[in-house]
Amino acid sequence: MRWPRGIRSAGTSCGIKRGGKPDLGILVADSPITWAGTFTRNAAAAASVGWDRSLMGREVRAVVVNSGNANACTGAVGRSAVQATAAAAAGLVGCSPGEVLVSSTGPIGVRLPVNKVVDALPGALESLTEDVASFAGAIVTTDSHPKVAGSTAGGATVVGVAKGAAMIAPNMATMLAFIATDAAVERDRLQTILSRSVDVTFNRISVDACESTNDSVFLLAAGTARNTDDDLLAKAVEDVCRALAEDIVRDAEGASRLVRIEVCGASRDRDAVEMGRAVAASALWRSAVHGGDPNWGRIVSALGAHDRSLDLGMVEVWIGDECVFDAGEPAGSLERASAEMQGEEVRVRCVVGSHPGVVEVLSTELTPEYVNLNAGGMS
Amino acid sequence: MRWPRGIRSAGTSCGIKRGGKPDLGILVADSPITWAGTFTRNAAAAASVGWDRSLMGREVRAVVVNSGNANACTGAVGRSAVQATAAAAAGLVGCSPGEVLVSSTGPIGVRLPVNKVVDALPGALESLTEDVASFAGAIVTTDSHPKVAGSTAGGATVVGVAKGAAMIAPNMATMLAFIATDAAVERDRLQTILSRSVDVTFNRISVDACESTNDSVFLLAAGTARNTDDDLLAKAVEDVCRALAEDIVRDAEGASRLVRIEVCGASRDRDAVEMGRAVAASALWRSAVHGGDPNWGRIVSALGAHDRSLDLGMVEVWIGDECVFDAGEPAGSLERASAEMQGEEVRVRCVVGSHPGVVEVLSTELTPEYVNLNAGGMS
Repeated sequence: MRWPRGIRSAGTSCGIKRGGKPDLGILVADSPITWAGTFTRNAAAAASVGWDRSLMGREVRAVVVNSGNANACTGAVGRSAVQATAAAAAGLVGCSPGEVLVSSTGPIGVRLPVNKVVDALPGALESLTEDVASFAGAIVTTDSHPKVAGSTAGGATVVGVAKGAAMIAPNMATMLAFIATDAAVERDRLQTILSRSVDVTFNRISVDACESTNDSVFLLAAGTARNTDDDLLAKAVEDVCRALAEDIVRDAEGASRLVRIEVCGASRDRDAVEMGRAVAASALWRSAVHGGDPNWGRIVSALGAHDRSLDLGMVEVWIGDECVFDAGEPAGSLERASAEMQGEEVRVRCVVGSHPGVVEVLSTELTPEYVNLNAGGMS
Repeated sequence: MRWPRGIRSAGTSCGIKRGGKPDLGILVADSPITWAGTFTRNAAAAASVGWDRSLMGREVRAVVVNSGNANACTGAVGRSAVQATAAAAAGLVGCSPGEVLVSSTGPIGVRLPVNKVVDALPGALESLTEDVASFAGAIVTTDSHPKVAGSTAGGATVVGVAKGAAMIAPNMATMLAFIATDAAVERDRLQTILSRSVDVTFNRISVDACESTNDSVFLLAAGTARNTDDDLLAKAVEDVCRALAEDIVRDAEGASRLVRIEVCGASRDRDAVEMGRAVAASALWRSAVHGGDPNWGRIVSALGAHDRSLDLGMVEVWIGDECVFDAGEPAGSLERASAEMQGEEVRVRCVVGSHPGVVEVLSTELTPEYVNLNAGGMS
């Protein structure tokens, strides 16, 4: 897939990861462009997140991203590394450091070998291309594949890349995603489009209920396409966000089963999302998903622990097309519910009241592989 | 160990569990006695929890407990089963059904075969003994051993038994615990003693961050010892609660490593407990514990996701005697921190501010065995 006109990128290996794996990406705009961003609300946010937040409202020329190191909880040294990265990129691109966004992903608490980033930037800039593939490949960590999605609408093109894997429970943002459009959009409007899209896509996924220090979504508007339709653009951005978010959950660490948790009837969408996230966070329910076991009691227990005033008499739980809990009583066939859980995708529907709202939270299974993948590596 | 004078118990197999494993316990007081209780706040609380709550403030003669079935989310049929159990025990003991507490533990959402309980009660009552062992053995589920603790103070004896294993993240109560004393204590005072003890013991443990539908702690005061010292009794009750709570965490499903998370410096003990629980709930940190990997970044990330206004400059994280994060910067030796994580007990200390309070939350590792243990069984 190609970036919208006016944007190019490159990916390379700078030596942060072992074995020469790609670990540095750079995205460059031909001229200063408008951008919007949403970031983790974690108080231990990475140094790069603080840098990017300080640039909100200004136009930018470039984004530098490394994988293999989160540069989070690294203090003053970490902040200096971000400044050095931006300065080096600025010198090469021909702009000011304040026109360079920086982003990192990988283990927390390890000092970033910033000299490796700085040394590799000139080579990366020589290989800039309109193709997203090498950039998308450079930002992954334990992802099994790069995540790319695109959409066109109302004369605008929207292209996004993301990385996921683990520590995925975004709240106001998710693990790195970079989305670009050729539309010309005023900055506040662009931020509104992004924030609304993130709220109904990335903010409704959970791999492991762990909210990262580095979650960031960027939306860059190159402005090379004119007279585009903002409402259709918003829809295209949301479509791209949703495709990337779903791809992140499908490719969750150690997991192969996608669980769609639909919550209906809550008085507010926000409450429904929180209830869906409570189910998505249950280690017991997620273990049952791994075994294909229709243990709906763990769903009801998660709902009841989250909302202590829940009226069980109003509650229904469905697994696929089988209603297994109805108005406070067990219902349906466990055998049929079990059959609904054997595929790659499991649908759960929780009716928690009589209000009209419906939300969907995407989640996954808990597996021995997830535990083993995350049992080592720091020391 | 023996119950305090005036209390006897029995344990038997009534056929709820497969293979004739013990699954029914009964505890009988020689005469009506004062009791206190704390229960789950889960909105999907089991039928027995509702029954017991309705008896608060009244004296009781007996407690009937089954394992192998939680009788939760079972609706009107579940409530009838509790009434039938209480009525059957009352007829045999010679009291009213309203003098019989009932408690259940096991899978949620399965109808309790109450006829098996009723049929087995006469035999159980014939084998009443002062020894706690058969009762303690009848209430376990996937526990590897029965949990018993005792203490004496100020002329009073306190003896408790508990069951744990999984779905352990008590909040205002824990998975079943039955504590008895021979002290004569007024009811409100007894409740205060129990609530305070539970708050600093059972409410500070987490196996899997899943709050059960059946969590209940009972404290029975037989009143056979007179002129006991209430303050020393409170201390003894707390000691017994702490010993049982720690035993539950040590015997967590699939786990063999105890993690003591000390949180210091929060403005309120309650905040400190919540921060400790946030670390205890992190699937990523718990996976690292399994691998003996000192991945302190996951601790800081869990703290920062929980308290979004956390000032990292005030934060220290210690693993054992090694300070690995100090005032926003990595510190110490990962090698020494790793060495601190190889034993059966891991100590983590999180300094989050400058207030004087210190709390300890007990937690455990996440293992592939936990996932496999919970991957099946419902269907």
